[in-house]
Amino acid sequence: MTDLVDIADVGRDPRRGGYSRHGFDRVELELREWFTEQARRRGLDVRPDRNGNLWAWWGAPGPDAVVTGSHLDSVPGGGAFDGPLGVVSALQAVDLLQAKGFRPAKPFAVVVFVEEEGGRFGVACLGSRLLTGAIDPARAAALTDPDGVTFGEAARAAGFDPARMGRDDEALATIGRFVELHVEQGRGLTVPVGLAASILAHGRWRYTFTGEGNHAGATLVEDRRDPMLPASRLVLAARRAATGGARATVGRLVPNPGGTNVIASSVDVWLDARAEDDARTREVVALITEEAERAAADEGCALRVTEESYGDTVWFDQALAAEVSDVLGGVPSLPSGAGHDAGILAAHVPTAMLFVRNPTGISHAPEEFAEAEDCAAGVVALATALERLAG
Amino acid sequence: MTDLVDIADVGRDPRRGGYSRHGFDRVELELREWFTEQARRRGLDVRPDRNGNLWAWWGAPGPDAVVTGSHLDSVPGGGAFDGPLGVVSALQAVDLLQAKGFRPAKPFAVVVFVEEEGGRFGVACLGSRLLTGAIDPARAAALTDPDGVTFGEAARAAGFDPARMGRDDEALATIGRFVELHVEQGRGLTVPVGLAASILAHGRWRYTFTGEGNHAGATLVEDRRDPMLPASRLVLAARRAATGGARATVGRLVPNPGGTNVIASSVDVWLDARAEDDARTREVVALITEEAERAAADEGCALRVTEESYGDTVWFDQALAAEVSDVLGGVPSLPSGAGHDAGILAAHVPTAMLFVRNPTGISHAPEEFAEAEDCAAGVVALATALERLAG
Repeated sequence: MTDLVDIADVGRDPRRGGYSRHGFDRVELELREWFTEQARRRGLDVRPDRNGNLWAWWGAPGPDAVVTGSHLDSVPGGGAFDGPLGVVSALQAVDLLQAKGFRPAKPFAVVVFVEEEGGRFGVACLGSRLLTGAIDPARAAALTDPDGVTFGEAARAAGFDPARMGRDDEALATIGRFVELHVEQGRGLTVPVGLAASILAHGRWRYTFTGEGNHAGATLVEDRRDPMLPASRLVLAARRAATGGARATVGRLVPNPGGTNVIASSVDVWLDARAEDDARTREVVALITEEAERAAADEGCALRVTEESYGDTVWFDQALAAEVSDVLGGVPSLPSGAGHDAGILAAHVPTAMLFVRNPTGISHAPEEFAEAEDCAAGVVALATALERLAG
Repeated sequence: MTDLVDIADVGRDPRRGGYSRHGFDRVELELREWFTEQARRRGLDVRPDRNGNLWAWWGAPGPDAVVTGSHLDSVPGGGAFDGPLGVVSALQAVDLLQAKGFRPAKPFAVVVFVEEEGGRFGVACLGSRLLTGAIDPARAAALTDPDGVTFGEAARAAGFDPARMGRDDEALATIGRFVELHVEQGRGLTVPVGLAASILAHGRWRYTFTGEGNHAGATLVEDRRDPMLPASRLVLAARRAATGGARATVGRLVPNPGGTNVIASSVDVWLDARAEDDARTREVVALITEEAERAAADEGCALRVTEESYGDTVWFDQALAAEVSDVLGGVPSLPSGAGHDAGILAAHVPTAMLFVRNPTGISHAPEEFAEAEDCAAGVVALATALERLAG
């Protein structure tokens, strides 16, 4: 039986712990081959789309398809469940359905989206964004990884033509309904399986503070314009601003040049901010930006703020959620603090998300975990929902 | 005529600006070849020592030698002058002395020390520390660069046997007096050339804050143990603690794993602290550590503090300084906020440092600068001093 254990050794990160699996890197390509092989063993026909996503069709492709799936990439040093659980559970659901002799009446596919985390190229849900036209393909192709490799170059090396990427109406038109199973990423579930009601509004902002690089020993404190000071005040302001359920996080901060005995000349700080709706998210970011501006001025530093990505609150299809909940005998519904490919697709097709309980609430970290019993309950729930939708 | 212009294209850093030249990297090895060729053109005999430093002897090596020189490596994204100016000025001083028919009565050498900045392996003055026994050679060999390459591996690749590294009494015994010319790194000189009286006490401390890695969207603020918060409070505390001429700087801060949508699981912060003496330096670091401990406790994070290097105040030889100042017609004397190989040698042999005026006080940055007239005055001063000492 296919299981997360099958891929437990692929992409371990010896430095950070956990897994580092990123879109089109050696590890993610190995996982795609593994998925292709697994799908073929079940008689599924695997076809990549133009945007680097993999589709495994059970029967002939066609319109009004029932589609399930998730992603195989991780954040740097991420956990085993975020992404792969949805792919593995989809394969296991197919196993359950095939074992009981079910044949889908509607077209049926398992999909693997590329670079969902944005861990390599900085923009989350890149594959589903390209598919739905939510990102300009030229902008996507120009995104660079930390080594300066562009997404276009990485895609080409993986056999995809970046010039052919972009909104794929043909593929979109095949999707009747989309269901993504995912590990829950907070502590919002007290039962094994639930449904997502919404995804918080979410954006990423980059703050570049520019001061004056100088010698850490020879420069008097009163002569300094050190961008690390306003950068640090931004980190503290983010925490103060995130009240009432809003979240604001700095997990990435890069001083340039980054030497121990050098006053930084500039510092890049990435802010991840989320709240229940657009107005509240903008309010949180405005508070943080005001403090960043004050702190930059206090230190004689310049500040440039760039919105790198933004997505408004996603409300999942209520009719589909009701249908799935009904066939599962009623399951709780909760908002998602995390973004998902399902959130991108929800703007185009009726979409639902099944969550599997996370006992600790830890995610995007090596300690991410879900109990085997809960994962098994997730597979049964997914198979039950798919059987109903595709039957 | 040899000039900094000769090496202006070697080791430019397109990302950070300025130069990135680090001990035993491709660029520094190219500069060492350049130095070797330049020295040979002047009839100097170039011999590496066991510790990766290069010695160019004018005449036969021997005891009571007059030695001058500096280093060719830089901080990441450093300037053109810090290091190479002392090497180039030494070659130009030899030119001046040879042009006037001077023949040194004492053994005479120009030395290039390896990895003075610690920009690659983290410990400053590595070559002079090894030579003088100021660092355990086994510890030096195990130092790693950001790619995980050890100093021992890099040394071996450059043709040096790490097992033979360590205190070199034979080489030390040859040095009668050492004079290093260097660009001044603050705004302490209002005339072209001065002498260093002392080097501030100086250490590097590493603070590792460990919290709980988690998802930036799904984790409620009240559930977080985010090590970026105490790390930021440390940066601000360092500024507050650096009063009365002390300096405390955080130029390097690395969140792990460092993803935009990930609460860091740990953060490493490097503190560079300097003050006029040991007691004051320890006092500044204690203040900062207290705040770091408070901040870690407030966020439920663990904190580990490691002293990575420390050097007490260096007082240069007063008799030698008086002799050099005298032959130069009297030059001002000032403390150095920056560390130097001369500071390491000063514990073993009479040592002097000549400073060339820095009009902006900027150093360890691409904008580091000295006027051509001041550099020329530095060469004349160095040649004059060497003629007196070796005559």
